[in-house]
Amino acid sequence: MDPTSVEVQHIAKMIDHSLLRPELTVDDMLAGCALAAHYNVASACVKPSHVSRAVKELSGTGVLVGTVVGFPHGASTTSAKVAEAAEALENGAAELDMVLNIGYLRGGDDTAVADDIHDVVRTAGGKALVKIIFENTYLTDDEKIRACRLSASAGAAYVKTSTGFASGGATLEDVRLMRAHVPAHMKVKAAGGVRTLGRLLEMVEAGAERFGATATATILDAAQRSAT
Amino acid sequence: MDPTSVEVQHIAKMIDHSLLRPELTVDDMLAGCALAAHYNVASACVKPSHVSRAVKELSGTGVLVGTVVGFPHGASTTSAKVAEAAEALENGAAELDMVLNIGYLRGGDDTAVADDIHDVVRTAGGKALVKIIFENTYLTDDEKIRACRLSASAGAAYVKTSTGFASGGATLEDVRLMRAHVPAHMKVKAAGGVRTLGRLLEMVEAGAERFGATATATILDAAQRSAT
Repeated sequence: MDPTSVEVQHIAKMIDHSLLRPELTVDDMLAGCALAAHYNVASACVKPSHVSRAVKELSGTGVLVGTVVGFPHGASTTSAKVAEAAEALENGAAELDMVLNIGYLRGGDDTAVADDIHDVVRTAGGKALVKIIFENTYLTDDEKIRACRLSASAGAAYVKTSTGFASGGATLEDVRLMRAHVPAHMKVKAAGGVRTLGRLLEMVEAGAERFGATATATILDAAQRSAT
Repeated sequence: MDPTSVEVQHIAKMIDHSLLRPELTVDDMLAGCALAAHYNVASACVKPSHVSRAVKELSGTGVLVGTVVGFPHGASTTSAKVAEAAEALENGAAELDMVLNIGYLRGGDDTAVADDIHDVVRTAGGKALVKIIFENTYLTDDEKIRACRLSASAGAAYVKTSTGFASGGATLEDVRLMRAHVPAHMKVKAAGGVRTLGRLLEMVEAGAERFGATATATILDAAQRSAT
């Protein structure tokens, strides 16, 4: 796949513009929402405490608001994740990127991992897409494969490579592995280190259909130049 | 202050043994609790989803169980932080290390920062110590000073330099600044990069009275050697 073969708008609608850095102010977030609207991306992914304001800001633009649950460590209790998800939905979030319980996965407690995911997916209840963040940098391939299976069983829409806040981000190998181990109706989101159009297109070829990005303008300006 | 002038046990009771890394399993946490009990530190600071188990493990040892709220980004909603704090208390946590809303502080919304802290402190209701984590690496001195004032007004017991998960940890300058800007009844906790006895003692001299540490054994073995 070369850049010109993919329409710019199609690429834009694969991007969740990430506005999750802890130091971002409301003004930073609003500027990010304006950028997300300008490029007409899939969503702006904002901090939980910014959801209401972002929903108001992006209303009518066609850009959704997403947020995160149990982010970035995945170490909250299940009831805390459920409460956080419910509040995000009330506040208008349409997509929830939830970190699974990494310690439970590594310790082999698949039941606890599955219950944690399932309860959040059930809370979303078809009103919001749920993406399950693995944080692959901490996981063996076996653990990633188990996480794919548990995410699929629980009814999640996406599996996602990374938070973007750990030491490692998305790799082509992980995207291929995850694509191979979730059913066809599920999708793979790559996040962490996707900063150029070239890298994004490699990831598409590996099987990713959504991206978490902060370099949204760089990527989409490059796509625009390639297309014209 | 030189090492021999401070009793080993006194140093141990200034340490919260940190067991917060997202990849730690239940077994890792239990091993950490055993270490915390062996050295008789102030507390084991565990992930929210590990609190119940840690409380059971450390019952009768004299080592408290602490946990975190809104950790490590501080970007949860206030109601999520309150719910997380309430659940931690129900599960037996005696100390709560809460990250303030960094974006609101940087954006100048002191009322929102104060309300966020106040609601968690009120939830703790004297049943648990609340420590307010600033994550100084993102803040100017003015912002750190405002955070001291807001933490004091809200009734927090401690101000704490860092989560240990951002790019920068505790500095002597920040400990001095925080000590100078909270009332005498409040204490300063240093976390992030305190890995040796020498460093800990420098931090004590700067005004810190509690430490988040993973190098607990290294620090306390060195204190034992100095004392004998």
